[in-house]
Amino acid sequence: MSVTAPQGFEAAGVAAGLKSTGKPDVAVVVNQGPRKVGAAVFTSNRAKANPIIWSQQAVADRVVEAVVLNSGGANCFTGAFGFQTTHQTAEKAAELLGVSAGDVLICSTGLIGVGDEAFREKVLTGTAQAIAELSTDGGQSAAEAIMTTDSVSKTATITRDGWTIGGMAKGAGMLAPGLATMLVVLTTDAVLEPLEADAALRRATGQTFDRLDSDGCMSTNDQVTLLANGASGIVPDLEDFAQALTELCLELSVKLQGDAEGASHDITIEVQHAASEQEAVEVGRSVARNNLFKAAIFGNDPNWGRVLAAIGTTAAQFDPYDVDVWMNGVRVCTAGGPDRPREEVDLTPRATHIMIDLKTGDASATILTNDLTHDYVHENSAYAS
Amino acid sequence: MSVTAPQGFEAAGVAAGLKSTGKPDVAVVVNQGPRKVGAAVFTSNRAKANPIIWSQQAVADRVVEAVVLNSGGANCFTGAFGFQTTHQTAEKAAELLGVSAGDVLICSTGLIGVGDEAFREKVLTGTAQAIAELSTDGGQSAAEAIMTTDSVSKTATITRDGWTIGGMAKGAGMLAPGLATMLVVLTTDAVLEPLEADAALRRATGQTFDRLDSDGCMSTNDQVTLLANGASGIVPDLEDFAQALTELCLELSVKLQGDAEGASHDITIEVQHAASEQEAVEVGRSVARNNLFKAAIFGNDPNWGRVLAAIGTTAAQFDPYDVDVWMNGVRVCTAGGPDRPREEVDLTPRATHIMIDLKTGDASATILTNDLTHDYVHENSAYAS
Repeated sequence: MSVTAPQGFEAAGVAAGLKSTGKPDVAVVVNQGPRKVGAAVFTSNRAKANPIIWSQQAVADRVVEAVVLNSGGANCFTGAFGFQTTHQTAEKAAELLGVSAGDVLICSTGLIGVGDEAFREKVLTGTAQAIAELSTDGGQSAAEAIMTTDSVSKTATITRDGWTIGGMAKGAGMLAPGLATMLVVLTTDAVLEPLEADAALRRATGQTFDRLDSDGCMSTNDQVTLLANGASGIVPDLEDFAQALTELCLELSVKLQGDAEGASHDITIEVQHAASEQEAVEVGRSVARNNLFKAAIFGNDPNWGRVLAAIGTTAAQFDPYDVDVWMNGVRVCTAGGPDRPREEVDLTPRATHIMIDLKTGDASATILTNDLTHDYVHENSAYAS
Repeated sequence: MSVTAPQGFEAAGVAAGLKSTGKPDVAVVVNQGPRKVGAAVFTSNRAKANPIIWSQQAVADRVVEAVVLNSGGANCFTGAFGFQTTHQTAEKAAELLGVSAGDVLICSTGLIGVGDEAFREKVLTGTAQAIAELSTDGGQSAAEAIMTTDSVSKTATITRDGWTIGGMAKGAGMLAPGLATMLVVLTTDAVLEPLEADAALRRATGQTFDRLDSDGCMSTNDQVTLLANGASGIVPDLEDFAQALTELCLELSVKLQGDAEGASHDITIEVQHAASEQEAVEVGRSVARNNLFKAAIFGNDPNWGRVLAAIGTTAAQFDPYDVDVWMNGVRVCTAGGPDRPREEVDLTPRATHIMIDLKTGDASATILTNDLTHDYVHENSAYAS
């Protein structure tokens, strides 16, 4: 049911001709209230697309009526004309919905540099068409309209004590946030104050999307938005809500990981006994971004030396000669030397588990990544064609 | 002529059975004096191989008699036994050469975790054999013995006003230093004081090897050593010497770039008008490490948006909407928007030139890298097999 699982949300996805394949490419999600609470986190890339610049301003008052999303063009580095396109899209949606343009968020995804007059016309037409087709059953079609190189649409739903959270996500490469990742819209009918929604969103994304690092590349267009309308009339326990939102975001993260461009292994990197959670994340991320490690996993090669070489580039507290490394349950390195023979490690399953014990403190963190494959190279060398 | 081009150096390379192919794998370079000046720069990876730990101590007094190098095993994360192997290798060489073990540097390259008793025996036997075969014509055979996945040996020579510099290098992947890169031995018969040799080496490597970034991965074993014996009797102009050494290191860097694992494009990233040289390097390096950009170049796709997305992840001073990007002489992006059509860019030549104008200051820097190819993935997924 995606973003229309909670009460009081409508959505739609339509084909506006932005994708050469003719597949759906414009989605709209509308909050029918009674509350119009919105929160969002954005890419920390300093090269921000026009929709990011717009949405950061629009969400500042924490009131959001609707989100318009398009695939088939990032509208990034498209000059002043591109920003006007974003602005006009918000105005068009606002006019048709009878709300203020400043309460409409915009998200775009696709190739950077795409955003000419034809793009604008299709986005505007598609927005009007999607609004005409809005429905409380439209969550799935919206999820399909934001897909780019995704092979499947990604949605999730959680229902707790009288309230529901729904979500949709797109992203299949370039999954590496400084803050948020990919395009995600989350909806809930729980009764939340604006600052409560904001805090829950930041906590959830910090522990999930922010620890998914497919290829180390940070997008110019990433945005995760939470809309809360209170339609259930239920005021949730805030801890329960934050946990449920984190759980739902983790489910979407795992779906994004499982559909990452060209991947043949889903790699979970668990870092234990770090001096701080931040250092655990730093260590896990350095391994997740090491091309040699990622290529070795693709080749089912338990090359643990590359794990240690990656850890050694961080500033985290640890003794390089007192680190244990486990691969799929086999301790291959301990105390600065080889432990079990590499032949004991079976890397043929898609699910791959790396455990790093830094033996320094009590903090831990888990980073999700993928291997580096021929298909990754192929998909990303042919993206624009 | 490699490291034996200058007067007063002997070298040899022999096959000791470390490589399963039976190719040469142990090299020795000996300084016959009269001066025994040595300087070295090392990987800044905190996970350091045993030879790095040894050589850092041994070079501290800036006296170096000889360098023993082996391929076929990195002797990294091989426990206390591995460090003893390094120590014994230095002692064996010292005994046979009639010098102090503390004046013998050790370098190893190959797979991490390899350094068992068989490895030790072969290294010790090979060291003795190489010393027995030392010759003033041995530079080429030494250069061949340090090759790993290199397809060709890399040597260079420069002669100026009565003095000569020779050098050999190995490295074909994992070319990303925090300080030095790969294994390199440089020799000169110029008359240099220890601090002069050290300063010239740091200047030269900082502008050359330190700006070669093939795959963003930092080795545990990288070492660049300069030996100066004064055999020419000529005291060089220090500026001339530093320039010549930088020129020679650049020649070796370009040879390393041209032989990087699996590469099909040699990419020169030139960053102009940065606020500082450090920021120019940061920007160039962020592009050089962006997998999406590197995969696009492999596919001859002038995807300039990925260049801007990579720049946006840095802390350098610039306005993302006032950056020019040129690809092989065509300005594809200016002032935050598309400029010339991407069809005008011909990326089919191996030599690829990216120019980034940050329009912020007067500093510039050039980073050398390669594209991300199917062959890179293949070679690095099959390395251990």
